[in-house]
Amino acid sequence: MRLAVIGVGLIGGSIALAARERLGDVEVAGWDPAPAALEAAVARGALSRACSSAAEALEGAGAAFVAAPVGALPAAVREVLGAAGEDCVVSDVGSTKRALAFAHEDPRFVGGHPLAGSESAGVEHARADLFEGATWYLTPAAHTSGVLYERLHRLLHGLGARPAAIDAETHDAILATVSHLPHVLANVLVAQAARALAAEEERLPATGPSFRDATRVAGANSAIWTDIYLANADALLAQLDETVARLGVVRDALVHRDADALTAWNEEAREDRRRLLEAQLAGGPVHELRASVPNRPGVVAQVALALGRAGVNITDMALYPAPDSSEGRIALWIAGEQAARRAQELVEELGFPVARP
Amino acid sequence: MRLAVIGVGLIGGSIALAARERLGDVEVAGWDPAPAALEAAVARGALSRACSSAAEALEGAGAAFVAAPVGALPAAVREVLGAAGEDCVVSDVGSTKRALAFAHEDPRFVGGHPLAGSESAGVEHARADLFEGATWYLTPAAHTSGVLYERLHRLLHGLGARPAAIDAETHDAILATVSHLPHVLANVLVAQAARALAAEEERLPATGPSFRDATRVAGANSAIWTDIYLANADALLAQLDETVARLGVVRDALVHRDADALTAWNEEAREDRRRLLEAQLAGGPVHELRASVPNRPGVVAQVALALGRAGVNITDMALYPAPDSSEGRIALWIAGEQAARRAQELVEELGFPVARP
Repeated sequence: MRLAVIGVGLIGGSIALAARERLGDVEVAGWDPAPAALEAAVARGALSRACSSAAEALEGAGAAFVAAPVGALPAAVREVLGAAGEDCVVSDVGSTKRALAFAHEDPRFVGGHPLAGSESAGVEHARADLFEGATWYLTPAAHTSGVLYERLHRLLHGLGARPAAIDAETHDAILATVSHLPHVLANVLVAQAARALAAEEERLPATGPSFRDATRVAGANSAIWTDIYLANADALLAQLDETVARLGVVRDALVHRDADALTAWNEEAREDRRRLLEAQLAGGPVHELRASVPNRPGVVAQVALALGRAGVNITDMALYPAPDSSEGRIALWIAGEQAARRAQELVEELGFPVARP
Repeated sequence: MRLAVIGVGLIGGSIALAARERLGDVEVAGWDPAPAALEAAVARGALSRACSSAAEALEGAGAAFVAAPVGALPAAVREVLGAAGEDCVVSDVGSTKRALAFAHEDPRFVGGHPLAGSESAGVEHARADLFEGATWYLTPAAHTSGVLYERLHRLLHGLGARPAAIDAETHDAILATVSHLPHVLANVLVAQAARALAAEEERLPATGPSFRDATRVAGANSAIWTDIYLANADALLAQLDETVARLGVVRDALVHRDADALTAWNEEAREDRRRLLEAQLAGGPVHELRASVPNRPGVVAQVALALGRAGVNITDMALYPAPDSSEGRIALWIAGEQAARRAQELVEELGFPVARP
């Protein structure tokens, strides 16, 4: 297969490296608006071919990744959809998804967002194993082609990632909480620590592990993060307001030196953390499910989203269209007996009977 | 030397294990108010001798660590100072220091706080390498015996830690910022994420690295943390108020979709983080400094604090009292030429001439 990577920085470069190292017979054509980045990607051995335009990179491609900063994504995705062939699945890697609503109307487009990265930008820091075990959110929509969705899913699986379907609205709301808010808090923490130490005329000999962990992402690349904050401003504002309200609760407990309230609050956080970690555990032997589905657009997206919403991870999937194309079969591989049973229920609730071979 | 460890949980147990593994000829006597903890410590091989009381453990001890929860520390330290011999240095491992002001009047007491720990409490999780490379704050005071301070410094260095002198007030203010506040924010983040996901009726397939890092300490052991929050409530309240004010600034920039303000704010955080990291870098060849100092209490504390305040790390130190005891010499080993020069300036500013052999 031919793969097009538009934008060869840290993420695009890592996709290219992973594809060349881990997938078998794949040609990776790349383009970047910055000639220096393109040269660096060639020097890293990330590309089979460096192209002089996005259109050239897209010639004959079966899949295309647009790895541009969030602010530049809408225009870049529009351009790529215009130049890509009928049989090319187009995805992006942006941290917010609602701004690409227009693209979700195109059957070839599936929004994407790998939960992987690094403190350092640029193809110099790209790694073939960047996505190993990382969740890669996909936002299939009503018009998404099942065949193209499956191709993308399989491709990401081949890069070592764990694709998980989610709708764009939910993605942005959740990311405001679990990514954008932690970045804001990390920035606030370093600013506060820097000022406190300056006020004490102290140089800090060392901070503890909790500070290092909490501030690892402080001052992340502005070229990327200002766009992300702006693209998701409404969802992030709601989260900031909630944080201030929750800090008010802690404040009251401290003002009243209320040990019971502090303990109850802390125990609740302990329980929340346990539940969040538990929800992320998946595993056990992989089970195969087969379902007959009507051969119409959106069905694969519907199945993927139903499982994604329930936290059921699709390890792998395959489509088997019937010869007359009026109906198809979808095969899903799910890790863990409990998750497989839940997947069966969910797919059957959608009206598609499931067989477990 | 005989070492007494009063309280053999994670920290006390790790001190005992590290002492037995890393120091040469040392006997570790331990006691814990919980018989089960004492038994577990014996089973782990942490103790040379399990004792039936704190007083028994303190018999003939040259150094004693009180490793009790912050809430129980004042009473425990009082008891240990009452039972310990004249020549025994007594320290603790509590995360706040002002509550032990009374003990700082005793020449044998040096408050301590290792910046090391684990998500898990109990001697089962104790490790001989827990303090390897970790900053260990010490709060010598005006009455502190120089001989005993040096013994403690050397002992901690032997456990693999990096002792750093700081005064108790400053310690508590800084820890409110770099430890207690990050713990509060971690709790708020998990609570917020748990509620957001419940509202969306989603199970979260996975969170990204920024969330995992920022919430690693969420819901830390309530038996420890409620006491810490209460013991440092005033300093923590000031930090919470500052956090809310800083979130207000971000809020305004988001409301006005002000890209320039967001970028400036993020760049400032980037610079703050760089400075904080830089301040923690130390290294280079170790230089020896020798200073003549008057043979009176508090001098060693004064030197240690002056260097600690300036962020100069004392790698090792030794005291050489003069035969007539009217004057002594102190030797300091400092890593890095620049830090050594700064140390020389600071010690000379205190009125003690420095020689560099």
